[in-house]
Amino acid sequence: MTDKGTDMNEGLVGTNVICQVALVVRDIEKTSKAWADVLGVAPPPIRVTAPLAESGARYKGKPTSARAKLAFFDCGGVRLELIEPIGGPSTWKDFLDAHGGGMHHVAFQVKGTDAVVRRLAERGMNLVQQGKYAGGQYTYVDAEDTLGAVIELLENFDT
Amino acid sequence: MTDKGTDMNEGLVGTNVICQVALVVRDIEKTSKAWADVLGVAPPPIRVTAPLAESGARYKGKPTSARAKLAFFDCGGVRLELIEPIGGPSTWKDFLDAHGGGMHHVAFQVKGTDAVVRRLAERGMNLVQQGKYAGGQYTYVDAEDTLGAVIELLENFDT
Repeated sequence: MTDKGTDMNEGLVGTNVICQVALVVRDIEKTSKAWADVLGVAPPPIRVTAPLAESGARYKGKPTSARAKLAFFDCGGVRLELIEPIGGPSTWKDFLDAHGGGMHHVAFQVKGTDAVVRRLAERGMNLVQQGKYAGGQYTYVDAEDTLGAVIELLENFDT
Repeated sequence: MTDKGTDMNEGLVGTNVICQVALVVRDIEKTSKAWADVLGVAPPPIRVTAPLAESGARYKGKPTSARAKLAFFDCGGVRLELIEPIGGPSTWKDFLDAHGGGMHHVAFQVKGTDAVVRRLAERGMNLVQQGKYAGGQYTYVDAEDTLGAVIELLENFDT
């Protein structure tokens, strides 16, 4: 175990630990209340992702003003993340439009995002969206054809 | 913590612990190898679910001969399950036909499936498929409208 709580290994993402499971939803307030009832917990606070000037978000290679409302539930060994897209374009908005919402990705804590992205790209899994959050960076890789899902790489900056 | 490793609580499913995340896939051999590369682990064995005579599987209220190939990866606090439908009808086959595969459900270890199913049904989340496996019973509840996903209730029989 590292100080980030992950087991690093020699696989393409460097770990076998799934830290998050995320759903894209149409109405986060309503869906969050329903999950709270199911899980037997209080509804979590709803946050909004940073604006473009802070996140530097890029979707399919271009800067995007897309943002999202987020809610997180602790579910034992994983966090359940709800995502409601605001504006677009983004992988969240495209997924909502294509599927009407649903389970979108699993996430891994990684070290060295650029190297992980290169290794995945060699296997046909390509970066689709990337941006910064306070203290770190997220990267979505489109692995729907290969793995059946989008995967997210989370990397917290050393402080 | 109980002897099943779950934290039971007063929520609708009796626990906040997600124990499994499952994907429906078209080709489990191929997808399983791709996940093994990503996770840095050996491909797991592929099992086939029990036939109707043993599983007593029911889909939308009727017995179904549907089966599935399954593969499981240990991913830290959760297991990642890959499911390739064999025959039909089933929630797996319908999901594959509707979405071309993807993330299908999250699972919870429960006690007293019938009572959990009743509580969920009162909130509009209805049982769609149920069957037995060696030592236990699985139940899929269609919560796509309410939670944005199918949820699975796993109950191991006391032995």
